[in-house]
Amino acid sequence: MKIAILGTGDVGLHLASSLVGLGQEVMVGSRTAENAKATEWARATGPKASHGTFADAASFGGIVFNCTAGSVSLEALEMAGAQNLKGKVLIDVSNPLDFSRGMPPTLTVSNTDSVGEQIQRKFPDARVVKALNTMRHDLMTNPSLVPGHHDAFVCGNDAVAKAEVIRILKEWFGWKSVIDVGDITGSRGLEMILPLWLRLSQVYNWAPFNFKIVR
Amino acid sequence: MKIAILGTGDVGLHLASSLVGLGQEVMVGSRTAENAKATEWARATGPKASHGTFADAASFGGIVFNCTAGSVSLEALEMAGAQNLKGKVLIDVSNPLDFSRGMPPTLTVSNTDSVGEQIQRKFPDARVVKALNTMRHDLMTNPSLVPGHHDAFVCGNDAVAKAEVIRILKEWFGWKSVIDVGDITGSRGLEMILPLWLRLSQVYNWAPFNFKIVR
Repeated sequence: MKIAILGTGDVGLHLASSLVGLGQEVMVGSRTAENAKATEWARATGPKASHGTFADAASFGGIVFNCTAGSVSLEALEMAGAQNLKGKVLIDVSNPLDFSRGMPPTLTVSNTDSVGEQIQRKFPDARVVKALNTMRHDLMTNPSLVPGHHDAFVCGNDAVAKAEVIRILKEWFGWKSVIDVGDITGSRGLEMILPLWLRLSQVYNWAPFNFKIVR
Repeated sequence: MKIAILGTGDVGLHLASSLVGLGQEVMVGSRTAENAKATEWARATGPKASHGTFADAASFGGIVFNCTAGSVSLEALEMAGAQNLKGKVLIDVSNPLDFSRGMPPTLTVSNTDSVGEQIQRKFPDARVVKALNTMRHDLMTNPSLVPGHHDAFVCGNDAVAKAEVIRILKEWFGWKSVIDVGDITGSRGLEMILPLWLRLSQVYNWAPFNFKIVR
């Protein structure tokens, strides 16, 4: 499958490499076609890896992962182009973290809105599914980094898109449990868990951990 | 031990009854000494149960539980009186939920502040420990309602007060695991988990569940 990864941070390049490792064709998109990290990543990763602008990548991918920082995701997706996102499953992995005021970090949007909702409103023809934003990037594609059972969460308005993302999480990445928390407004809860996630990351000295819902 | 419960909602009266059941002397405080729910609760609960104003209760208790709605906690604690809270362990169980805009509910304070922090700032001589706000009231005193291992969280600036609350959670209520997420600014994360908690409550049709950190 052809997959677009928007963003060249740790999350984006980790997902990109993992997806190539799973046999997918991946284009990493960034602001400029000459982005040094994306260029080097594609060179080192081989023939199934390519890079381009946000628009190049969104046009290329049948599925699009938004791995840009949540605070700039709308701008990045605007550069990707609504016509390139139309009808596509858009997996929003972003978090609107703002570390500029020090710890604990704040969110650039929260409580009455979320990045997931903003994206769905701005790109109504994209099929936005919020997923994987509640964990460290290496855990996203390798849940066995944390022993035992624990959970990934998804939400979104399009049931078919959500089922496709759940299938990717389970069949490609190995997730045993994916909890559907409803429509895209569930993004608020999934993004607002980040302050606790960051606190726990400090408590555990940045060792991997994950949330599990016990019942 | 003499314990004050501020608030006559489900959380307050459940904690009050549980604490009497554990052999403690409990005074439930509310805006007026004649509060009907508190009066009836004390009558039905027996000689170790009493009721009064917020100030009566705070003066009575060696430990104070804030079980008022987070949106009015500062006002309630002001009625309780700073002099009655001075030097005492003040366990803040509140959440600043606002259902007035419909679902999902919003928080009256979040992101850059929290009720836990507001209380500690306004009552610097109280030893505020945020605890038990991340779960259903019946689970607070009976973690075995949810099978297996799962977590309670605490945070606060006073290490001795936090140790005392952890002891109460473990020895009185039966919690096996209590995670300390640091100083009182950790309240932000603990309160901001509520939107996800409410979503999950809907998903599970209000059956009991809890968060567990797996690592």
